[in-house]
Amino acid sequence: MQLSHIPAVDAPDAASAAAAAARQDTLTKPPGALGRLENLSVWVSSCQSSCPPRQFKRARVVVFAGDHGVARSGVSAFPPEVTAQMVANIDSGGAAINVLAGAAGATVRVVDVSVDSDPLSPPIGAHKIRRSSGDIAIEDALTEEQTIAAIEAGRRIADEEVDAGADLLIAGDMGIGNTTAATVLIASLTNTEPVAAVGRGTGIDDAGWIRKTAAVRDALYRVHPVRFDPVAVLRVGGGADLAAMAGFLAQAAVRHTPVLLDGVVVTSAALVAERLAPGARAWWQAGHRSTEPAHTLALAQLELEPIVDLGMRLGEGTGAAIALPVLRAAIATLAEMATFSSAAVSGRDAPA
Amino acid sequence: MQLSHIPAVDAPDAASAAAAAARQDTLTKPPGALGRLENLSVWVSSCQSSCPPRQFKRARVVVFAGDHGVARSGVSAFPPEVTAQMVANIDSGGAAINVLAGAAGATVRVVDVSVDSDPLSPPIGAHKIRRSSGDIAIEDALTEEQTIAAIEAGRRIADEEVDAGADLLIAGDMGIGNTTAATVLIASLTNTEPVAAVGRGTGIDDAGWIRKTAAVRDALYRVHPVRFDPVAVLRVGGGADLAAMAGFLAQAAVRHTPVLLDGVVVTSAALVAERLAPGARAWWQAGHRSTEPAHTLALAQLELEPIVDLGMRLGEGTGAAIALPVLRAAIATLAEMATFSSAAVSGRDAPA
Repeated sequence: MQLSHIPAVDAPDAASAAAAAARQDTLTKPPGALGRLENLSVWVSSCQSSCPPRQFKRARVVVFAGDHGVARSGVSAFPPEVTAQMVANIDSGGAAINVLAGAAGATVRVVDVSVDSDPLSPPIGAHKIRRSSGDIAIEDALTEEQTIAAIEAGRRIADEEVDAGADLLIAGDMGIGNTTAATVLIASLTNTEPVAAVGRGTGIDDAGWIRKTAAVRDALYRVHPVRFDPVAVLRVGGGADLAAMAGFLAQAAVRHTPVLLDGVVVTSAALVAERLAPGARAWWQAGHRSTEPAHTLALAQLELEPIVDLGMRLGEGTGAAIALPVLRAAIATLAEMATFSSAAVSGRDAPA
Repeated sequence: MQLSHIPAVDAPDAASAAAAAARQDTLTKPPGALGRLENLSVWVSSCQSSCPPRQFKRARVVVFAGDHGVARSGVSAFPPEVTAQMVANIDSGGAAINVLAGAAGATVRVVDVSVDSDPLSPPIGAHKIRRSSGDIAIEDALTEEQTIAAIEAGRRIADEEVDAGADLLIAGDMGIGNTTAATVLIASLTNTEPVAAVGRGTGIDDAGWIRKTAAVRDALYRVHPVRFDPVAVLRVGGGADLAAMAGFLAQAAVRHTPVLLDGVVVTSAALVAERLAPGARAWWQAGHRSTEPAHTLALAQLELEPIVDLGMRLGEGTGAAIALPVLRAAIATLAEMATFSSAAVSGRDAPA
């Protein structure tokens, strides 16, 4: 079995970027004074091939839920049954991502990729690959067929969302144990020692951190021989949810749809997606920097600078959702501000 | 002439803060996982004496406009007439602050405190103190009467806004040359050498930076003998707009109204306001960190940690406005998220 062909990723439109940068310098403010907002407005223009950029009409969060066999090794502060409970909580609108997406003008969809229970509902389970993933400390997370099916499911989900009008995508995660698998992917692809990559996840104590680091070390040992094959890395050291996220992020880029990345779990999938679809990272911005050390390692490799740094470590897409208003504000300034000539404001003094 | 009595500033409500912190730990997320959002939600609760906190219904930006005699010394990249032009631009909705406040659900008012022209309209000029302020490099910015009148004007403006229902206040600035005066206030009150405090303002070149640093040095020499008297510091080294902002920020605290601070100019006024009304800073959060070195010095003395750091350096209240959605999101999480018991989600494992 083989992954179906992923089309080459186009670069965002350079002409629109140039037009946006030129327009920024006509607005009634000193050149560069809006800092990062100016760069973000240029980026959205280039993704939309439009200057000025259009405000997002359908910003969409997709939460990928999955359990992980490694959670049975005491790597998390929460018991595995929380994954299914939180899928229900997200579905009924009570989770942090529901509140933060709502505040940012985005809607939320939760997808059961590999939760260790029956799907909550047929739509939520429509793309389900399996129950849980193998314990990566001692066995492969997935079979090759499951890995490919999960990547394809993620690509299909991106297609569904873009076809339904999504113009800004956010991937979120939900799954007890998923920061352990994410850390394996990142440590492997950035060639980092486990102790420099493993964080506290949802808040483990020192003994839990030692168990988690041992699990990451064991999984890394198994991933090492296949580390240059991104599909195999997902199969040996990842999980079905991570594989689906990677497919989703790659396909968003194929479909010319901008993405705000979330924390360590989504960004670990982004590292893999950039290898599945080189150039995809040009369609992504990093929403936030989480407290997980592996997140910073992944952002550095992707050369992405987070928009905010608020000490968040929740996942679900919350760190991307909190950054979405900044992206919307960047669009609004370029689209709506007066120009020096329209407002009859004097420009800078001529150089002496 | 003497400043009228400023009532003692109450501390925000500790019981509401405690209730908010306790409620955070019942929400369906790991304790602390929302990072800074949790602290901000607790702060709003304490300011409102209410747990959960209420979403802001009338967030209000007041832009204090004023010219500065020191601008004639070539300390800015823009000519002085821009101040009056930008007051008109803000009044007609075309400035960055209009767009960013609109995106954040806030409204904007511009006040002509000391613009070097006739007021644009009677309401905008209702609190006008004088045209421009003295060139602080060689003379006092204001007379004692003007200084006191400007502080009182700022206090009246805060009263007007709170009486009209404002539940979140932002002060903004507009005035060519105002970062020079702001830097004098901050360097004086933090005992900092001019070269470590002076920044590029709206974007001056090296020669302009040298002129600006010389002006700051000369003004600091004149401020030094009065540096322990906050009213005199405003009189000798500030300006009418800065004095009005200081009165506004102090009175907001007297009136138990939370404030998001903006950049270097507003924060220089905040340093003075904390001396006029000790404890006022408990009612403020720092919206952002600008690129001006003096801003970081002032934030450190106020012990305020900025919410975002986006390389902005525009003033007008824009750095506070870009942070307002984060504050709104913090309120929303504490007010709207499900609890572990309401959502039937399992809590952390009991400690081993």
